[in-house]
Amino acid sequence: MDIISETDDDGVRARRFDLRVGEEVVPGMHWLPVGATGAHPTVCIGHGGFQHKRYGNVPELAIQFVQNLGVGVVALDAPRHGDRIVDPEAAKKARDEAVAAVGKGGRRGLDPKVVAAMARRTQQHVDEWRSLLDALQADERWAAGPFGWWGVSMGTTHGLPLVAQDDRIAAAVFGLNALVPGDDEQAARAASITVPVLFLNQSDDELMTRNAALALWDAFGSSEKTMHINPGGHVQVPRFERDASEAFFRRHLISRP
Amino acid sequence: MDIISETDDDGVRARRFDLRVGEEVVPGMHWLPVGATGAHPTVCIGHGGFQHKRYGNVPELAIQFVQNLGVGVVALDAPRHGDRIVDPEAAKKARDEAVAAVGKGGRRGLDPKVVAAMARRTQQHVDEWRSLLDALQADERWAAGPFGWWGVSMGTTHGLPLVAQDDRIAAAVFGLNALVPGDDEQAARAASITVPVLFLNQSDDELMTRNAALALWDAFGSSEKTMHINPGGHVQVPRFERDASEAFFRRHLISRP
Repeated sequence: MDIISETDDDGVRARRFDLRVGEEVVPGMHWLPVGATGAHPTVCIGHGGFQHKRYGNVPELAIQFVQNLGVGVVALDAPRHGDRIVDPEAAKKARDEAVAAVGKGGRRGLDPKVVAAMARRTQQHVDEWRSLLDALQADERWAAGPFGWWGVSMGTTHGLPLVAQDDRIAAAVFGLNALVPGDDEQAARAASITVPVLFLNQSDDELMTRNAALALWDAFGSSEKTMHINPGGHVQVPRFERDASEAFFRRHLISRP
Repeated sequence: MDIISETDDDGVRARRFDLRVGEEVVPGMHWLPVGATGAHPTVCIGHGGFQHKRYGNVPELAIQFVQNLGVGVVALDAPRHGDRIVDPEAAKKARDEAVAAVGKGGRRGLDPKVVAAMARRTQQHVDEWRSLLDALQADERWAAGPFGWWGVSMGTTHGLPLVAQDDRIAAAVFGLNALVPGDDEQAARAASITVPVLFLNQSDDELMTRNAALALWDAFGSSEKTMHINPGGHVQVPRFERDASEAFFRRHLISRP
């Protein structure tokens, strides 16, 4: 982790860093309590599609967790997102195409080559997250974890394989995602996850049915898994679910037996 | 409210009272902060079937709310429950018959006369709750409210018509209950409820399907309504949902804008 800049505000230190993973330079953020000397847990926030590490709910949630839980929070730009966008015009075109494809029935409306490329980028990003955990563990303050995952929508697309592959994640908030009938790979991935899960589901989500989201929740292997359903569309998760996420991490990362 | 006894323990005053409603004497409990002088909100807890005002989760939840929220909490014995049981043998027989009937398909397995008698007792108990609110409002500490409702299973059977009929209830926790297809009366009752609702649903509830519980949640007229689904059976609601209920009442009864 190369620290690019560092600012302190309202008890929260925000560090902009670059993480080198093979050929890639992955830009990220690390928020932590100013003056924290002892070990503390770290929450990983995976941003949504077409969002990035310093956008809207990511820094707001990060600052809330740092201030109220005393944890550290990290976020990375996903491939083709945030500071990794090299061609803004191409990014805008890709976004418009994806939105149009979703309108025609989600991934079923996408070229199989596009779907395969998305899967490759997902695994690439999972590897980047695992490299970040390695880098964090080089510092004794964060080495012991525990680590949490918070990521809805595309943040769940990335978080599911990460949590399935890496047992350093002790508790995960997922949501705004679904299990498509016949996607046995996704079902097996969810079944292999046994850590506590909080799942945020929007009843009127334009991108999936409530039942498809319930099917994903059903598939988790966790003995503790809670689904919160609220009315409204994909981007209308109520603010109070941030407090529910905070209470979930307090229970699993802070007050552990 | 005739106060029968009063004890202080761990910052909580527990008052056993009798409420006279027509010919009936309704036994109840009132928990409040020891030494509370100012006005404070009151949460009404409706117990489940075959439980009562001083059983298990009712006093535990009451003490948690009093200690952590600084509110008062009241509970009543429903007709044929708790201290209102005059013939323990008959009560046991009724319980066994109800359990057997549920095993045969719920109310559909019950004699229509029995169903009609249950509906009369429900309305009787709603009237008793409304009388209790009247009695509480005779004391300026509780006159202004706001009042909350917490009641799952039979506590929702009683709470739905109460909240629909009485606009003094500002926020309600329901759960472990369902909308049976064709029950237009229940659907209309739910639709008339517009206060914030938290609904606790168990995914493996032996007494109803998850979809029937979702149908009840769908029917609420509230713009803020959240369903929490956990794995497990009817009596296996996780303890942490008590904290979720506390956070819900904190938001709606304490931190009101």
